[in-house]
Amino acid sequence: MQGRLITFEGIDGAGKSVQAEELRRWLEREQQRKVLVLRDPGTSPIAEQIRRILLDPANGAMSPWTELLLYEAARAQLVEELIKPALAQGSVVICDRFYDSTTAYQGYGRQLDLPTVMQANRIGACGVVPDLTILLDLEVEAALQRKGHLALDRLEREERAFHERVRRGYLELAHAEPGRVKVVKGDRPVEAIAKEIRQLVAALLAG
Amino acid sequence: MQGRLITFEGIDGAGKSVQAEELRRWLEREQQRKVLVLRDPGTSPIAEQIRRILLDPANGAMSPWTELLLYEAARAQLVEELIKPALAQGSVVICDRFYDSTTAYQGYGRQLDLPTVMQANRIGACGVVPDLTILLDLEVEAALQRKGHLALDRLEREERAFHERVRRGYLELAHAEPGRVKVVKGDRPVEAIAKEIRQLVAALLAG
Repeated sequence: MQGRLITFEGIDGAGKSVQAEELRRWLEREQQRKVLVLRDPGTSPIAEQIRRILLDPANGAMSPWTELLLYEAARAQLVEELIKPALAQGSVVICDRFYDSTTAYQGYGRQLDLPTVMQANRIGACGVVPDLTILLDLEVEAALQRKGHLALDRLEREERAFHERVRRGYLELAHAEPGRVKVVKGDRPVEAIAKEIRQLVAALLAG
Repeated sequence: MQGRLITFEGIDGAGKSVQAEELRRWLEREQQRKVLVLRDPGTSPIAEQIRRILLDPANGAMSPWTELLLYEAARAQLVEELIKPALAQGSVVICDRFYDSTTAYQGYGRQLDLPTVMQANRIGACGVVPDLTILLDLEVEAALQRKGHLALDRLEREERAFHERVRRGYLELAHAEPGRVKVVKGDRPVEAIAKEIRQLVAALLAG
């Protein structure tokens, strides 16, 4: 069995973790594949320590460049400690977020210099490229509503503009790499989305 | 007053922190300069959190790429939060280690791909380049003895080979950038070394 890396991408609320679990079940039960589900940043103990620094609200003074480099550091650990060994054993690795998140959030969202973000992505990924990336695309309004944001105050409007840039970034990535990044519409029932994803993954595994 | 960044480099035991303090005193007392002494990684609260992950002996499974990127993340925070504002106010910033440490330790010591290490250094330094780098050069044997290593067991011999590569890396950096990186012989009395450093710094401040 050939190892495969499948990543899920999209703005918060797009349904990534639900669909990652749906895909895991199908791969294990119907395809008899060994599956490893990971989240980036995180999963490995060292990457979880880095995640805690990233998410600590007391670290509001963090430079966006530090943020970028911490995401890359956590990813390098995930790749070397968990992803590469699992791929070598023929597993399907499903990753909730990977370097496209960094391009979309730090590059498009925070508007850091894009070529530099992509250079950092190459270092953090340690030579690994996803075989398939599922971009769950959803209108920002709908995603924020799913997350429980109903009326938007000033900060939330700023947040909304940020997420609009992130969404646009993701769509530009899909446009630039149509073979790897597949856009799946997220405003449909879970099972309809899961079915479309299964078809994309089946094509990958048959290829 | 023009802000200046002066970095101290060298293997452990070369005398960097003693000479940084000597230089601070001279700059404050004799030159009436505002001085900020920093250590990289560290000093800023976020960078100290990153330093703790780097130095925790429980994190032995850390990938050398994660290590590299954590050093860069800590450095970016130090630069944006402390170094750039201090330089803008005309201070002399003295930094105990900076990106040449990463080139020497991760590039030469751990033998990571050098162009990639230098690319990472450019991202982590956020556009800052030291005006003067004092490389305190000392034989590895002498440095280890200063640190209390007398008889070398197997691990210490490995460690010695590592430090020999780091020392050679530093000397190659000095050879490549003779205008910025000045080699100061570390096997002499503190005051003799301090005097040579004061001459180099006086030339920088007059220039």
